[in-house]
Amino acid sequence: MCSPLVEKVVRERIHQQGLPHVSRRNFLKLGGLTAGGLAVASLFPQRQARAQDMAMPAVVDLSHVFGTNIPTYTPGEAPTREDFVTVEANGFFIQRWSLYEHAGTHVDFPAHFIADGETVDNYPVENLLSPAVVIDISERAASDPDAMLTADDIQAWESANGDIPPGAVVCMYSAWEARWNSVDDFRNPDGDGVMHFPGFAPDAAAYLIEQRDIHGIAVDTLSLDPGNSTTFDVHYAILGAGKFGIENIANLAAIKDMPALVFVGIPRWEGSGGGPSRIVAFSM
Amino acid sequence: MCSPLVEKVVRERIHQQGLPHVSRRNFLKLGGLTAGGLAVASLFPQRQARAQDMAMPAVVDLSHVFGTNIPTYTPGEAPTREDFVTVEANGFFIQRWSLYEHAGTHVDFPAHFIADGETVDNYPVENLLSPAVVIDISERAASDPDAMLTADDIQAWESANGDIPPGAVVCMYSAWEARWNSVDDFRNPDGDGVMHFPGFAPDAAAYLIEQRDIHGIAVDTLSLDPGNSTTFDVHYAILGAGKFGIENIANLAAIKDMPALVFVGIPRWEGSGGGPSRIVAFSM
Repeated sequence: MCSPLVEKVVRERIHQQGLPHVSRRNFLKLGGLTAGGLAVASLFPQRQARAQDMAMPAVVDLSHVFGTNIPTYTPGEAPTREDFVTVEANGFFIQRWSLYEHAGTHVDFPAHFIADGETVDNYPVENLLSPAVVIDISERAASDPDAMLTADDIQAWESANGDIPPGAVVCMYSAWEARWNSVDDFRNPDGDGVMHFPGFAPDAAAYLIEQRDIHGIAVDTLSLDPGNSTTFDVHYAILGAGKFGIENIANLAAIKDMPALVFVGIPRWEGSGGGPSRIVAFSM
Repeated sequence: MCSPLVEKVVRERIHQQGLPHVSRRNFLKLGGLTAGGLAVASLFPQRQARAQDMAMPAVVDLSHVFGTNIPTYTPGEAPTREDFVTVEANGFFIQRWSLYEHAGTHVDFPAHFIADGETVDNYPVENLLSPAVVIDISERAASDPDAMLTADDIQAWESANGDIPPGAVVCMYSAWEARWNSVDDFRNPDGDGVMHFPGFAPDAAAYLIEQRDIHGIAVDTLSLDPGNSTTFDVHYAILGAGKFGIENIANLAAIKDMPALVFVGIPRWEGSGGGPSRIVAFSM
């Protein structure tokens, strides 16, 4: 088990290095410490271990702020908020929100597209923790906003890294989030109002569903399908297979070259096909 | 690293054993497997490891469904929801929610009570993952709804288990959640409308803040302070110290006798002093 001193040093480094945005460089520094002091310490110790002996992983935030000026797939579906009570007037502070479920960093579950599909409140919680596979199509997306993550891209990743592990979340990293603070740039509509941003290709969804055993997929754009899709094949395939899809994920660059687990922190929205979530990654 | 076969067996057992509600017995079974095959496999492997080699912990749900009939501290603050579009009429399903932030399984952050206190959207994400310490006052709470978790209770826990670890979430387990499905039983008001349910005693909050280094506290009732409090000392102490407090946490019985990490999955509610969250524990 790790010594309290080593744990303290790691924790201080994590603070100094300004998480939530863990850079590759920071990870390497943590890796060095890991090799020196934490290599045998599991986050999930055997049952004899005490709470005091647990080593803490880095937590990487993969979520945008859920705010009132965020880009949405359909205009007008950003949330609103108002003060209900305030510290100054009432002694404590509560906001009241009005929100559409599919805004911000959020997750689509089967009931979003499938009649009688599984809802958020009763979805198996163990499926919300998943090894991350990040596939980088940012170079192609920089020159082609209609770029898609294809089955070929997945097979190229597998040639280099081995098969997609069971229970993975396969994430499209297109670097589109650089546009997040501009509604127009993020939605990127043409003169006819057709949006142009990257998404999964239907053959990629089919490969993951038929040939592999995934928990879900994720995109750093507004939709699992590319912005110009009119048939939503990827939504139907992924949600129809009982999987989930994360939209508007952020900060994938921080984990694209390291083993990490992605956790979907979605409140148990009653009867829901999805909703606002905290998405994070854990990595040591 | 663990073999794919062992990992597969563990994963199948987890599925068979019907998580999210991991029982003590199931944990022991997993513990046996851990000792046999997973002892050296960390959830957060060193950086040379591949995604394929990661062992998956059990995920234990500590959250109630966020629904329209839940008990709230102040009557009338349960959320409402309505269909915005439906699969049948529109091809896809989105609900619209109206909600007050401090309802359901949720978290109080400093801005809830402290002017200019830290808000959810920018709170340090690494503080959202914390070793769990569960202190059981259920026997006392069964005969006294005004029971409090005191500094003496914490010191008794420490005598048996060692000091509260740095960065812990200290959880009050009163078994009050058995009343969750009845608004009246959970709020438990007397003839004058004064509520009676367990909470932290001020001396417990002071001890944790002054003598220990915690991330936050948690209660399985509607308030960090006991229901009959009029001064909210525990709220002021915990939030004033920059810590957080989880209210209406569920299912603590599942983790009270095992090492576990608690994760606060709270969407990054803009400018907020708290809000609906997915609270889970991770344990191997």
